[in-house]
Amino acid sequence: STFVAGLEKLKKGEIEPYGVPLAGELPIDFKDIRIVGSYDVDRAKIGKKLSEVVSQYWCDVNSLSDDPVVSTGVHLGSVKNLPIEAEGLEDSMTLKEAIERLVDEWSKLDPDVIVNTCTTEAVKPFGNKEELLKAIENNDKGRVTAPQVYAYAGTLYAKKRGGAAFVNVIPTYIANDPAFVELAKGNNSCGFGDDGATGGTPFTADVLSHLAQRNRYVKDVAQFNIGGNMDFFALTDEGKNKSKEFTKSSIVKDILGYDAPHYIKPTGYLEPLGDKKFIAIHIEYTSFNGATDELMISGRINDSPALGGLLVDLVRLGKIALNRKEYGTVYPVNA
Amino acid sequence: STFVAGLEKLKKGEIEPYGVPLAGELPIDFKDIRIVGSYDVDRAKIGKKLSEVVSQYWCDVNSLSDDPVVSTGVHLGSVKNLPIEAEGLEDSMTLKEAIERLVDEWSKLDPDVIVNTCTTEAVKPFGNKEELLKAIENNDKGRVTAPQVYAYAGTLYAKKRGGAAFVNVIPTYIANDPAFVELAKGNNSCGFGDDGATGGTPFTADVLSHLAQRNRYVKDVAQFNIGGNMDFFALTDEGKNKSKEFTKSSIVKDILGYDAPHYIKPTGYLEPLGDKKFIAIHIEYTSFNGATDELMISGRINDSPALGGLLVDLVRLGKIALNRKEYGTVYPVNA
Amino acid sequence: STFVAGLEKLKKGEIEPYGVPLAGELPIDFKDIRIVGSYDVDRAKIGKKLSEVVSQYWCDVNSLSDDPVVSTGVHLGSVKNLPIEAEGLEDSMTLKEAIERLVDEWSKLDPDVIVNTCTTEAVKPFGNKEELLKAIENNDKGRVTAPQVYAYAGTLYAKKRGGAAFVNVIPTYIANDPAFVELAKGNNSCGFGDDGATGGTPFTADVLSHLAQRNRYVKDVAQFNIGGNMDFFALTDEGKNKSKEFTKSSIVKDILGYDAPHYIKPTGYLEPLGDKKFIAIHIEYTSFNGATDELMISGRINDSPALGGLLVDLVRLGKIALNRKEYGTVYPVNA
Amino acid sequence: STFVAGLEKLKKGEIEPYGVPLAGELPIDFKDIRIVGSYDVDRAKIGKKLSEVVSQYWCDVNSLSDDPVVSTGVHLGSVKNLPIEAEGLEDSMTLKEAIERLVDEWSKLDPDVIVNTCTTEAVKPFGNKEELLKAIENNDKGRVTAPQVYAYAGTLYAKKRGGAAFVNVIPTYIANDPAFVELAKGNNSCGFGDDGATGGTPFTADVLSHLAQRNRYVKDVAQFNIGGNMDFFALTDEGKNKSKEFTKSSIVKDILGYDAPHYIKPTGYLEPLGDKKFIAIHIEYTSFNGATDELMISGRINDSPALGGLLVDLVRLGKIALNRKEYGTVYPVNA
Repeated sequence: STFVAGLEKLKKGEIEPYGVPLAGELPIDFKDIRIVGSYDVDRAKIGKKLSEVVSQYWCDVNSLSDDPVVSTGVHLGSVKNLPIEAEGLEDSMTLKEAIERLVDEWSKLDPDVIVNTCTTEAVKPFGNKEELLKAIENNDKGRVTAPQVYAYAGTLYAKKRGGAAFVNVIPTYIANDPAFVELAKGNNSCGFGDDGATGGTPFTADVLSHLAQRNRYVKDVAQFNIGGNMDFFALTDEGKNKSKEFTKSSIVKDILGYDAPHYIKPTGYLEPLGDKKFIAIHIEYTSFNGATDELMISGRINDSPALGGLLVDLVRLGKIALNRKEYGTVYPVNA
Repeated sequence: STFVAGLEKLKKGEIEPYGVPLAGELPIDFKDIRIVGSYDVDRAKIGKKLSEVVSQYWCDVNSLSDDPVVSTGVHLGSVKNLPIEAEGLEDSMTLKEAIERLVDEWSKLDPDVIVNTCTTEAVKPFGNKEELLKAIENNDKGRVTAPQVYAYAGTLYAKKRGGAAFVNVIPTYIANDPAFVELAKGNNSCGFGDDGATGGTPFTADVLSHLAQRNRYVKDVAQFNIGGNMDFFALTDEGKNKSKEFTKSSIVKDILGYDAPHYIKPTGYLEPLGDKKFIAIHIEYTSFNGATDELMISGRINDSPALGGLLVDLVRLGKIALNRKEYGTVYPVNA
Repeated sequence: STFVAGLEKLKKGEIEPYGVPLAGELPIDFKDIRIVGSYDVDRAKIGKKLSEVVSQYWCDVNSLSDDPVVSTGVHLGSVKNLPIEAEGLEDSMTLKEAIERLVDEWSKLDPDVIVNTCTTEAVKPFGNKEELLKAIENNDKGRVTAPQVYAYAGTLYAKKRGGAAFVNVIPTYIANDPAFVELAKGNNSCGFGDDGATGGTPFTADVLSHLAQRNRYVKDVAQFNIGGNMDFFALTDEGKNKSKEFTKSSIVKDILGYDAPHYIKPTGYLEPLGDKKFIAIHIEYTSFNGATDELMISGRINDSPALGGLLVDLVRLGKIALNRKEYGTVYPVNA
Repeated sequence: STFVAGLEKLKKGEIEPYGVPLAGELPIDFKDIRIVGSYDVDRAKIGKKLSEVVSQYWCDVNSLSDDPVVSTGVHLGSVKNLPIEAEGLEDSMTLKEAIERLVDEWSKLDPDVIVNTCTTEAVKPFGNKEELLKAIENNDKGRVTAPQVYAYAGTLYAKKRGGAAFVNVIPTYIANDPAFVELAKGNNSCGFGDDGATGGTPFTADVLSHLAQRNRYVKDVAQFNIGGNMDFFALTDEGKNKSKEFTKSSIVKDILGYDAPHYIKPTGYLEPLGDKKFIAIHIEYTSFNGATDELMISGRINDSPALGGLLVDLVRLGKIALNRKEYGTVYPVNA
């Protein structure tokens, strides 16, 4: 909803485009972004006008230039620990039927770009197209996750329509799953993928670059992260597996050229922090003549606005890629 | 002494070149750096072998490949608050004579590059060559400061020798003083100038770049700095004038494109911190949809090694500039 | 105005008494605190109802149970650098006349407790009663400062009325000036004095107590402080003298029993921080077997509410001291 | 080994008793502490003189006033993830035999106080004496853990000897296990129990006290903790269960009187940090008039010296309790 609220204010000229990295640098104006549909699995939101939902969170937004009704999505257990009453298409039909339904609805709405911002969850890549198709055919609701359903429906939609872009801003392995890359190529769709990292990690990355440029030797990096929104709540249950995937993150080695010992993980859930997470970073490095320096960084960062600002760019980049027919391409996203 | 100790260990292969930004990227090897002379105004050091002085601070350095005797420099009151017994050439001769003496000695030592690392002090630029020459002629010891004497002697030496480089790593206004730029051009010398900033400021600069790249709007920046070495001690007396100059620092506007309100100053002296200063940085910025994020950064940074590593590059860059005959040029330095 | 706004909400039961240290522990209820008069030297506020002034800052406060008109106070140059148009009684009369006017007005308003929250400024103690009286007699507007005028008027008022309490929450030396202690005793007034420290210092004090209890040896303490309210603005001009007084602060020695090297000062002014100051604290200490530990503390603290909550206690303590006839006593205040 | 090294230096007068909370306040002098025996399960240490082991870690300790040979202890899997070659009495005998062996050895060494500093591990309390005895009788090496074996052996030793004290400074539930309280009472032993918390938690506790005294309302508390010693390494395997126990920690409610939302856990292992752990604490609270303040605390704290200093007190307190015949008593320990 932050994306919708902020976009609306941008269109109306009520706010400056702060937090939108490529603000005025793209050939597509904010005003040209139109929201043609919206999906949710929270029963309290389904069936309402999008403006009704948004104004619950943002009292300064009363109306929307585009105001679709919120449709029913799929959840496939992704919300099983969240404090909402969930409703998904799969409750009353097979996966295959749900996917067909989505493609039908999308064909009517006719979007250029489909955005997926499902709550973070652990996804097992399929590896190849066949495995994915088989799981859907078998209606294997325990194997296929919501982002994968949307991504697959997206490729079918792109094929039917002759092209579409798919923006995936959660840390699942869709853009990097060969199954989807393969599907995207064959179906005229382009994907923007990987995690829409919005907080500590890109900042840590830039601090590491700073040190690398000065040829300082990083001895160790620790990064903690705690918040009170649904993404952090989702960690409370499956924390362990989840975070293990995160540590595979290769930013340390990519930037420094060596794999400095590090601990970089979303750490916990603390409800009163809300959407404004707390991050703590500790870095030790060797300077000239063997001296050890030390940095300790703390911060409070609003999660949703960081992601919302990024989305304003990503939907525009998606449209541009589409115009250029860059099908099958995968773009890394790192805010 | 950190520069000398670290360089020696580098030559002997005892340490990695961490903290030397351009370590292996320059055509000049560490081993080709030779120290031909050394100047000081501390009576306890003058007349001793450089290795004796260095080993007082670094017990792991027993011998030096080059081991000149420490000669008498000029202080001109720059050390008046420091807890050392000072002795300078100017105690027994006029400024003009002292400068002639330096040029004579340097001509015998024949260095390519002269490095100035005097304790930080407030310097009033001369503006043009004539003013500087007049002050020296008048033996005006209250107007001319030590770094200016060395810089002027450096240009005379460069003229006599047919070329020399001058590295000035203290925040005085020599490299930017038209008087010296003029002198450098006419005398075949090249200067590397401005402050060898080694701690919080380059880091703040990189953090601001990080925010600028993401189009976040910086609301305010505060940066504190406290240490226990001579550079911080020098602040206790003349702190006020001193730090005012610092705030003129335009890094905020240069990087962001607008002059975000900021307070960036060396703050104080606290003896037990020694050479390892404490820095504290606070930054607030606006993200998407009007959200305010906040970063708080603390650190402990060794001052001398940061500067020492930089010097290893600067003397090599000085020699390279000299070889290319880039006289009169001024290079900005920002570690 | 935070004090007035918060007190009103407390009386109406709109907020909990958080930040009021002795909330329910005193025999006087919040509802029994009545505001009978208010003084200011800002032309934009004088003559308005207090509720008008308060509602400019606190939009959730529309009416006040007690709503006096703001009267003209004295400034005596204390606001010379502040961005307000100042007006004081001394503009049109002598100091003596101004003091008589205040005593007359107060006699009509009949307060039990007089609160002084002038902007922080450097005050030179008088040492004895005679010096103070002489300066007032001579109409020496350059020597006497606003808090001293109020304090002296307070003792005259107390004498006339047969008892009154005076609460002084700025870091001037009134409660500790023998001149005022003497006056207080002879005039049936009691004073609560010294700085109403609200932020870093009491916190640092408690951290030092923590370390002292564990018999750790504190090597050094640095504490910075930057804010955007009038109190920090006042530092920009007279910062130097000002902060020197602060360092006299003996909290380090009082708590630890030895004078650990420290730098504890309000550091600077940064307008966008507003009333919510940024503090940074660094402490190093020796633990068992010579190990060195290190703490780095950052914080954002609202200045006015910290003081406002304290005032709610102080006016009640003032009234209690008055009831007990504890004249001439000086109570230390440390929030 | 830090305890031994530091104690030796204390006895020799080489260091001040910093980090020993009750340094000179107890009737027992440091010099009266004698080390009569030492146990380990690291094959590299067993059979060596204690001084040999200590001098590997502390090169400034060459000799010990008391220098026993390191004997074989029990491990019972407590070291299964640690990078040492483990050897325990239970490798060659039953639990019952191992316990008898320990009691025999101790009877010869005749200590007043037995100290247990096993690596942190998850222990399931027995609840009553019978369960414990049954598990030992059954030689149930999967149920009984090392600290429980030592504690039980301690009670037998105390009975045989007519009194002994047991100091347990790891976060297992021995001092609070009714089984051991019962045993202690019947066997003339006294225990000092519970976690020898040495870092973030006692500090957080004192910060919370600071806030409680000022009647500020704590909204949330987050505390992270990462280190590179064996205690943190032990978290990598069993982290989940482990840390869950930790969160049961009731310090927040005990101090504040209400259960402010909190996340307080040892977070991870990062080898290069070694024994000097990094802690990060974030606290938000409500001040007067609804204002929210925020504290962010970072620190580097040496684990072993914090514990070592505490032990110097605990062994003395153990002896004092023994002299007073305070059998069966359990003392809480919180550094």
